[in-house]
Amino acid sequence: MKKIKIGLIGFGTVGSGVYSLLKKNSVLIRQRTGIDINIKTICDLEIDKFKDKIQNINTTKSWKNITDDSEIDTVIELIGGIEPAKSIVLESLKKGKNVVTANKKLLAEDGEDIFKLESNSGSSLGFEASVGGGMPCIQALRDGLVGNRVDAVLGILNGTTNYILTRMEDDGLSFNDALKDAQKKGFAEADPTFDIEGFDAAHKITVLARLAFNKKVAFSSIPVEGITGITSGDIVYAKEMGYAIKLLGAARIVGSELEITVRPAMLSLKHPLASVRNEYNAVMFSADMTDPIILYGKGAGSLPTASAVISDVIQIARKIKSGEKLPDVETAKLLKPKDQIYRYYMRLSTADRPGILSRVSGVLAKNSISIASVMQKAENSKYVPVIIMTHNCSEQGMLKSVKEINSFDFIESDITIIRIEE
Amino acid sequence: MKKIKIGLIGFGTVGSGVYSLLKKNSVLIRQRTGIDINIKTICDLEIDKFKDKIQNINTTKSWKNITDDSEIDTVIELIGGIEPAKSIVLESLKKGKNVVTANKKLLAEDGEDIFKLESNSGSSLGFEASVGGGMPCIQALRDGLVGNRVDAVLGILNGTTNYILTRMEDDGLSFNDALKDAQKKGFAEADPTFDIEGFDAAHKITVLARLAFNKKVAFSSIPVEGITGITSGDIVYAKEMGYAIKLLGAARIVGSELEITVRPAMLSLKHPLASVRNEYNAVMFSADMTDPIILYGKGAGSLPTASAVISDVIQIARKIKSGEKLPDVETAKLLKPKDQIYRYYMRLSTADRPGILSRVSGVLAKNSISIASVMQKAENSKYVPVIIMTHNCSEQGMLKSVKEINSFDFIESDITIIRIEE
Repeated sequence: MKKIKIGLIGFGTVGSGVYSLLKKNSVLIRQRTGIDINIKTICDLEIDKFKDKIQNINTTKSWKNITDDSEIDTVIELIGGIEPAKSIVLESLKKGKNVVTANKKLLAEDGEDIFKLESNSGSSLGFEASVGGGMPCIQALRDGLVGNRVDAVLGILNGTTNYILTRMEDDGLSFNDALKDAQKKGFAEADPTFDIEGFDAAHKITVLARLAFNKKVAFSSIPVEGITGITSGDIVYAKEMGYAIKLLGAARIVGSELEITVRPAMLSLKHPLASVRNEYNAVMFSADMTDPIILYGKGAGSLPTASAVISDVIQIARKIKSGEKLPDVETAKLLKPKDQIYRYYMRLSTADRPGILSRVSGVLAKNSISIASVMQKAENSKYVPVIIMTHNCSEQGMLKSVKEINSFDFIESDITIIRIEE
Repeated sequence: MKKIKIGLIGFGTVGSGVYSLLKKNSVLIRQRTGIDINIKTICDLEIDKFKDKIQNINTTKSWKNITDDSEIDTVIELIGGIEPAKSIVLESLKKGKNVVTANKKLLAEDGEDIFKLESNSGSSLGFEASVGGGMPCIQALRDGLVGNRVDAVLGILNGTTNYILTRMEDDGLSFNDALKDAQKKGFAEADPTFDIEGFDAAHKITVLARLAFNKKVAFSSIPVEGITGITSGDIVYAKEMGYAIKLLGAARIVGSELEITVRPAMLSLKHPLASVRNEYNAVMFSADMTDPIILYGKGAGSLPTASAVISDVIQIARKIKSGEKLPDVETAKLLKPKDQIYRYYMRLSTADRPGILSRVSGVLAKNSISIASVMQKAENSKYVPVIIMTHNCSEQGMLKSVKEINSFDFIESDITIIRIEE
């Protein structure tokens, strides 16, 4: 019987989920795998609050009591944020311990020291729980697709924003009302910035892209746009044309360059991700040997994320770590905006007077953007929405056009542009 | 560098896919994993046909040249069927070789000797490729959900039948015309029996259920019903009521009993599997710790299945086989028809005269089945379709009713019943 002694750092939502899961299913896990998992020590600054709940396990407020404990072979880091999480992970790896973490922010924003140390040490790092809750995305990528060259990772990676967009679509709610509904139902936090501005999704796509393409990218260089600029009108117009608006994390290899973004996208209703609704998440991998594979599920939650943590603990316990020096991760060369070619949806709010369309289309033509269709929505107000669908054009040309058009005095507010994915 | 020497038996669709995949991506795999995979010998009765294609690899027509070769550590069995596949797998495991197979028929119908030998030996058996092509279903179940008690596995497990049902739904085709279309497009074989009668799906759900629940079940005791009895009318009526008809492989634990079936089911359009269309497959796992997880993709094909084979080869090479004696698989106690409680759709084709509904509903009432709705479809023909939707009732009561109603002289042809999954 292989025995694993865990040091659990962070006893919040996921940490207490890990405790509960093991309490309920550790016998089952032992029978299935021949691996006996025991939590030796739990560390949390507020551990006094939980002491009554925890039985037969040491508790501490100092993480060094865990990293210094030579009996502990696996550290589960669930406190989130950069520090002290980074020190905990590095120290644990240095001491020869395996580490399992759900910390997407750390891995996405400041993970290189950690990945490097792991690849040069005998220890392993598991981070299934950092993306997609109970959905085994990392495993699908790392193990299921190990024989493939992955071309693209597309994901609806944030349940909060997907829930909000679904409410806007189904019930015609404004963004603000849909956000309030999400908060009421527990799908959005009191301060929802991190989710609605796209940062959560950006952390996840960064972690996935690094693994899929073996390329690192400075987090700050990733274009991230949330859903706060999307109106219920956009969603209605999109639907009329056969599209759904989703917050899409996308990473694609184009030639030898990486395109990585988080932004709202219009997905053709035939796109497999278009039907992912409510608080659900989904990740789609395209690769050279298999047809696209999609994983679909709720992407968060205490026990599902704990389930991913435990899956990592067991996979690491079962695996022989390769003694090979794996190829160094490359620094990604980002695909330039001039090479990012998409069709676009463009919504202007303009004064309702003659000659406006001619000036707007003149700007687009100058930037080599040809128009596929124009709809002017009749409204009884000073400004009217004009929807322009373009043919394929470059991001560069589009951004230049937007800037120019925005400066016209007949434009009411900022122009919304949304990329189209067929 | 860990070196794996492969003996590949069977050079058909998947076998040649394995060869091509390794030819293209083996350097990438080596860089990623530190594992060097080489095919030493290929065995196929018709190997002479392929000799020109194969470079620097031994060829043979006798599988014993592979199982007897002490240099070969991993045997990939891709000939399908029971024998000689079973002898090849058993002989390889006995000789201490690891085995990777895509042979769902063998594992489902006659796999117990193999599973038993594997669990008592130092060798490993991989069978990711037996279910779902490139979708890592086995891995999700075995590794991703290792900390969970799985309650149910539901799957659209056969691309041929799903393609046919989609054509019937979208284009109003009859079953026969949709089948012809599927054959023309290469989604159905010249003799489609194995797919359309549900046996392919039955093999797959059996393999999944054994792994999910650690229970074995005699393949012949599984109720298997294909889609040949489904009319385009059924599909239209289902749609009117908010359902899609899918061929569903379902395995569920109810108390300590197993319900396992393959049959057409009506899925509520809100059901995550209802939107799986064309030749796509999907598998949904429900478990105690995570929300349902769905894997979605094309379930077959040469390279996707080869990708699953190679994933298994690498996982086995990486893993430490547990020295533990794992718990014996239990023989499943099957859930009795009287305990299988569902709502049903029932279609009768009856003469159009008074008093018929009274006699039909009398039989249902006698068997404790209450009716939720009745629709009589007006048609200019001697017989008219009558659609009855029931409230929850037992399979036993339903089967008794069907038998009795079928014997009435006003019933034209066999009654169709379809279970409803919300």
